[in-house]
Amino acid sequence: MKIAILGSGNVATHLSKALKAIGEDVVQVYSPNLEHAKLLADELQASSVNHLEQVIGDADFYVVCVKDDAIATVATGLKDVDGLVVHTSGTTDLETLSSTLKNTGVFYPLQTFSKHKEISFNNIPLCLEANSEANFEILNLLANKLSNQVYQLDGEKRKVLHLAAVFACNFTNHLYTLANQLLEKNNLDFEIIRPLIAETADKVMVNLPENVQTGPAVRKDEITINKHLSMLADLPELQEIYQTLSSSIKLTY
Amino acid sequence: MKIAILGSGNVATHLSKALKAIGEDVVQVYSPNLEHAKLLADELQASSVNHLEQVIGDADFYVVCVKDDAIATVATGLKDVDGLVVHTSGTTDLETLSSTLKNTGVFYPLQTFSKHKEISFNNIPLCLEANSEANFEILNLLANKLSNQVYQLDGEKRKVLHLAAVFACNFTNHLYTLANQLLEKNNLDFEIIRPLIAETADKVMVNLPENVQTGPAVRKDEITINKHLSMLADLPELQEIYQTLSSSIKLTY
Repeated sequence: MKIAILGSGNVATHLSKALKAIGEDVVQVYSPNLEHAKLLADELQASSVNHLEQVIGDADFYVVCVKDDAIATVATGLKDVDGLVVHTSGTTDLETLSSTLKNTGVFYPLQTFSKHKEISFNNIPLCLEANSEANFEILNLLANKLSNQVYQLDGEKRKVLHLAAVFACNFTNHLYTLANQLLEKNNLDFEIIRPLIAETADKVMVNLPENVQTGPAVRKDEITINKHLSMLADLPELQEIYQTLSSSIKLTY
Repeated sequence: MKIAILGSGNVATHLSKALKAIGEDVVQVYSPNLEHAKLLADELQASSVNHLEQVIGDADFYVVCVKDDAIATVATGLKDVDGLVVHTSGTTDLETLSSTLKNTGVFYPLQTFSKHKEISFNNIPLCLEANSEANFEILNLLANKLSNQVYQLDGEKRKVLHLAAVFACNFTNHLYTLANQLLEKNNLDFEIIRPLIAETADKVMVNLPENVQTGPAVRKDEITINKHLSMLADLPELQEIYQTLSSSIKLTY
């Protein structure tokens, strides 16, 4: 397939490289910032453009990997291309892609991408939706070449999944940051807590999290909880988070 | 070293097996519940007892792995043994071990243990404290045989570490549970989110978490945040957690 990538951020970078790696023909990268477009295009041996009217009209597949609030504008800029146009957003409706487009879909990789960390697409769940059965089959075929976890999800389910991902990924990483704030304040290195973080994630690879909850709140150990709350007296923000999550734990299990 | 284990829970089980595996002589397991003591003792080919006065008096090393609020009682029950008596608690002062004991210490493994999941002690940070330089050296020698991450930490730092661990492990696992609640409610399988959880933890093995935060709150994407809050309208507990953590993220980065 002849593919144009619209965007140059983390998703654009990782996805375009993965598409090239399975032998697809990534021919062009668009970004409003030409330097950004060129940087990625050079890695892909593709051309780079920074105006939507310069995007080729005869690609088979257009992948819109831009910020959610720019998807509509970019898709409208593609005018009436015949190729299949997909966005990669968890929170955006399929219908946000311009109504003048004939072939549309969603290709949402459920993963957290960082610029400087390689990641294999094999284990990345790909969540698909399309405006026709035929277009879905095109996406499904492609997705199965990239990953062994492919799901067909409508917009409502995709949005729930995105919300769940905020809890399981974004909020979790923030808890790591708060833990590190406590460590740094006491001249302890983050290294000391890394094995615990790794094992906490590893435990739920084979268990459901509700079956492996540990800690003072699930034991209803009020003595330790109160000690911790008083240790956080000068950090009211952390104290509030401690209180909120501990109350939730006590109610949940 | 001739070792007696006081306790039969997760820490007692994992630690006693690790001690046996490096060639130490684990001779006895005490638990107020004889059946529990026997279950672990059989695995270790040790004897089992359920009264503190039955605990052997001539062990070199007594490992008290009982609930925090039972440590004082068990230590007092050991009366005036000469061997080195340690507890394994993150939150308990060294001084909680009876003042009649001559040789005392803390041997705190910073890890989350589950009954049915094997774990190698190699990468478990062991946090040590002792009531004398000589006793510290005994602990240090033993700890270095078990793990390549050994730290000398006083009670204050150990308590901070334990508190940080609640954020990085217990609260994190609870966020996984909340994510799964959202998924289950919408007939989505937890499997779909496992790769994201694994990668979120993996990212901070080489980065500091404050450098890899992603998601709507750190982007100050109020449109997505408000969509998510309205999706949680019928789950006020999750809505509060979403709000509290998003506010904290917006203030932190």
